[in-house]
Amino acid sequence: MLPDIEICRQTELLSINQVAKEFGLLEDEFQSLGKHKAKVSLASLKRTQGNKTGKLIFVTAITPTPLGEGKTVTTIGLSQGLKKIGLNAAACIRQPSMGPVFGVKGGAAGGGFSQVAPMEELNLHLTGDIHSVTAAHNLASAAIDARIYHEQRQGYDAFEQRTGLKALKIDPKNVVWKRVIDHNDRALRMITVGKNEHNKTINGFEREDGFDISAASELMAILALAEDLQDLRKRIGRIVVAYNLEGEPVTAEELDVAGAMTVSMKDAIEPTLMQTLEGVPTLIHAGPFANIAHGNSSIIADRVATHLADYTVTEGGFGSDMGFEKACNIKAQASKQAPDCAVIVATLRGLKANSGLYDLKPGQPIPESMFDADQKALEAGFENLKWHINNVSKYGVPAVVAINRFPQDSQQELDTLKAMIEALPMDVEVAISEAFGKGGDGAVELANKVVAQCDKESNFTPLYSVEDSLESKLSTIAEVGYGGSIVMSYKAQQQLTALKKHGFDNMAVCFAKTPMSITTDGSVKGAPKGFDVPIRELKLCAGAGFIYALSGSVMTMPGLPDKPAFMNLDIDEDGNIVGLS
Amino acid sequence: MLPDIEICRQTELLSINQVAKEFGLLEDEFQSLGKHKAKVSLASLKRTQGNKTGKLIFVTAITPTPLGEGKTVTTIGLSQGLKKIGLNAAACIRQPSMGPVFGVKGGAAGGGFSQVAPMEELNLHLTGDIHSVTAAHNLASAAIDARIYHEQRQGYDAFEQRTGLKALKIDPKNVVWKRVIDHNDRALRMITVGKNEHNKTINGFEREDGFDISAASELMAILALAEDLQDLRKRIGRIVVAYNLEGEPVTAEELDVAGAMTVSMKDAIEPTLMQTLEGVPTLIHAGPFANIAHGNSSIIADRVATHLADYTVTEGGFGSDMGFEKACNIKAQASKQAPDCAVIVATLRGLKANSGLYDLKPGQPIPESMFDADQKALEAGFENLKWHINNVSKYGVPAVVAINRFPQDSQQELDTLKAMIEALPMDVEVAISEAFGKGGDGAVELANKVVAQCDKESNFTPLYSVEDSLESKLSTIAEVGYGGSIVMSYKAQQQLTALKKHGFDNMAVCFAKTPMSITTDGSVKGAPKGFDVPIRELKLCAGAGFIYALSGSVMTMPGLPDKPAFMNLDIDEDGNIVGLS
Repeated sequence: MLPDIEICRQTELLSINQVAKEFGLLEDEFQSLGKHKAKVSLASLKRTQGNKTGKLIFVTAITPTPLGEGKTVTTIGLSQGLKKIGLNAAACIRQPSMGPVFGVKGGAAGGGFSQVAPMEELNLHLTGDIHSVTAAHNLASAAIDARIYHEQRQGYDAFEQRTGLKALKIDPKNVVWKRVIDHNDRALRMITVGKNEHNKTINGFEREDGFDISAASELMAILALAEDLQDLRKRIGRIVVAYNLEGEPVTAEELDVAGAMTVSMKDAIEPTLMQTLEGVPTLIHAGPFANIAHGNSSIIADRVATHLADYTVTEGGFGSDMGFEKACNIKAQASKQAPDCAVIVATLRGLKANSGLYDLKPGQPIPESMFDADQKALEAGFENLKWHINNVSKYGVPAVVAINRFPQDSQQELDTLKAMIEALPMDVEVAISEAFGKGGDGAVELANKVVAQCDKESNFTPLYSVEDSLESKLSTIAEVGYGGSIVMSYKAQQQLTALKKHGFDNMAVCFAKTPMSITTDGSVKGAPKGFDVPIRELKLCAGAGFIYALSGSVMTMPGLPDKPAFMNLDIDEDGNIVGLS
Repeated sequence: MLPDIEICRQTELLSINQVAKEFGLLEDEFQSLGKHKAKVSLASLKRTQGNKTGKLIFVTAITPTPLGEGKTVTTIGLSQGLKKIGLNAAACIRQPSMGPVFGVKGGAAGGGFSQVAPMEELNLHLTGDIHSVTAAHNLASAAIDARIYHEQRQGYDAFEQRTGLKALKIDPKNVVWKRVIDHNDRALRMITVGKNEHNKTINGFEREDGFDISAASELMAILALAEDLQDLRKRIGRIVVAYNLEGEPVTAEELDVAGAMTVSMKDAIEPTLMQTLEGVPTLIHAGPFANIAHGNSSIIADRVATHLADYTVTEGGFGSDMGFEKACNIKAQASKQAPDCAVIVATLRGLKANSGLYDLKPGQPIPESMFDADQKALEAGFENLKWHINNVSKYGVPAVVAINRFPQDSQQELDTLKAMIEALPMDVEVAISEAFGKGGDGAVELANKVVAQCDKESNFTPLYSVEDSLESKLSTIAEVGYGGSIVMSYKAQQQLTALKKHGFDNMAVCFAKTPMSITTDGSVKGAPKGFDVPIRELKLCAGAGFIYALSGSVMTMPGLPDKPAFMNLDIDEDGNIVGLS
């Protein structure tokens, strides 16, 4: 098969105007940006709010290998399969982060004949949303350090007199708003800012800081959860950026920066419209990294799509313990729109990886031997799939397992796996998906099964209610969501007390943990039970509406491997991009 | 008069398609991005290279006050004035940096009835070029730290065996590629990166670093000076990012990151087309900050415009010692396209400020009393204007002084100034410009004078030839360009020796100094002579093709004032931006 970028280039795409019109958007409801991208105005939501709401299909997965199991391929392929069987379908995915594009993982446009196109536009700057989030985020950072500098240098009283502003008295040791950048840059995880020579203060006041990857910004979660521009503005105002010397929260509103941050994100709140290789309208909105962030596409994009299409396919990062958990407990509770069906992507390779019999490391190639038949490994890894099927059923969402076929897979082993799933005493359907190699044609069986499951009554139940206490919500995710139990660090316990004191008991909870295991230890494979879920730190995201629990050794800034993907990237003699996958 | 943003909103704009077609672009030579922006394909350059080359008019200024003297207003107004008198005109300006938009200065779209529109799009993310430059720049930074980390952690031999790459043995104390961000963020000027807890190295190796503002990135200068995408690729490959443990330069090419950096800037190499309030096509390209950077619009934009329009108006930052010097000595030498006429913008306020009789500080309002008649201050400040007229004539470029009228100015004082200029024994024309208040109608006199000067033979002569020695070039700028003489620090002398040893003697030179004085001390006003030009540090920009001399206390990262412009910015109930000027 050709490389993804070649398949994409050889496909004749529709003009984005045609895609938008076929999707059902009116001429003044979108702005085309070049031939193949458009920004969708939120005005379309107002017009279509009376329309029937289409079905929302959520694509999740087993616990993945470091290279992923093809969730985006399946999402795009399924939307194309739905179109093939004559249905009105759309897809909603997240904007890829350039960190992984230049790092290990490469692009996130799907692959083979199930891609969002043009893939080089999707995988690079797209329409600048992540840059807008980054700019808004770091504006607040600059504002914090400038405020500390001016208040301390002038003295609080003099500052108040000179500026007419209230001195915020921010504690430089208690600034909780880190900076962000859309790169895998481990050297920025822990930094000292505001350094000076010769005892001067011209560069501000020295303090410890660090950068997260932009997708982990609270602003990205806010973008995904906001109802509209005014809601975005209000949420940004509620962000707690620091605590003052008396330990009281200081918000972006008090820093007088929330308006400017919103202005910076004014275009970002509009989803970007693109198309799949088979012309299915696809909305791109919000950011990835469901391990360390919210990691779901936006409520706005889902609403636009489900009010125009009968079937909208979306996805959340990693296994059902990660993106799907957050989609149900955070996003669906906020949007009041539950998934009508879940698709669990499994691969032979991924199940064998979950057997614990192979040693797979991020950044290293997956051994070809994993494609050989290995009944023992398959059976051991199958426990992981069962765990995810059971996990999805906890939320009352009907499910279909999509076995994402790799070209190297043997038909016999695929049939074995399918039979194993069919034999399960669970209400779950199964289909082999050949979306990568055959596009929508390879996903017709999957599409039919999904449509049948969507017709079933969904009894959606999130695991907790936001009214529950914070401890209860954290415990519920650990116990019911993962099968372990929380162990809070001293720091986290102190933070919990402070959060309750400041009235943030009614926030949802968002776990940051490794996606490579159901536990918080990436080396533990399969379907473990009764493990510890250590919480080392709690972070308040008052604007997004959740408490962010850092669990295990997960880091909110990835690093580059020793031979990063960027080394393959270049332009050729004709100015075309080469080496992007 | 209405606020700029209101004037802009109340003006009916042409569709960008119409602007592009009237400009002379063919349908496949531009891509419209929404209704009012387009990216211009470099294919248009190939088609039009046989066309007659139009006149290039360069707008510069006297030594400005902290708020500027209206150079962009005059640039846009003049292009509109040229159109009013029936000529085929265009403008080329730089993309505003968001740092100053959120900081002190506000936007950079011009003002009043001489604006580039829509001003809120120009002043914010525009088409993402600065973000692309920032992303490409910081990718190299991440690549450097990752390479140091992996080589040191694995050991050089093991690294070479494992990856098949050559160990670069970068000296962590000699990384010359700082990071960049498009914010005024003083706390990032000096930072420590790669910090770790508990003697670990998971976050890389600790070293001193810092952020410059993105406009000061060598990549921004490369963007302004590149001929085309392939030239961009080659120049990026030549960038020296660090020195190895033996003191030899390490390039972006050797780091295998030059291709990916080019890919990140692939769209940025296309100028953005917009329009003035009176429909004059305006190309936006490259970045500002002619004090600390190259600070001129791009060679590509000038070429596109001068091959389509008979008169192209462009500008360089600050006084003629700054942007104009760099336009002549760096840009015109690289492009072989000299300005046909220089417009020197002067204001009554700015000349009085140059008298030294007023104490003006950045970030503080300019006293209204400066608009009162003050013959003594005007005469004292007039020396500064004479200096700039004389400076422009050194380059053999015919000049017109544009007196940019503020609404508060008295007609009598304006007439006095005009008569003073007319009485000069110099070949210079003068016109009062009311472009701010009246648009193109207010710039008709100026346009006529400019056209007359353009018809004169230009005897363009840069101050130095790139073949001269580095010392000679530095001395020439200081002596002939400023009227002072260089004093090199010990560090700069050592750097000079090293640069010559490594074969970089044939680079142009780019000074970073305060724009608020002809000297390197911002408090020295008027037309001083015989002063020191201290050079504290030399930086190699091998890709851009110049040596960057840091002179005086100028900093490559601005800071936010105590009451920054972002505090005024917000969205209103209808979602419109308010408070942008």
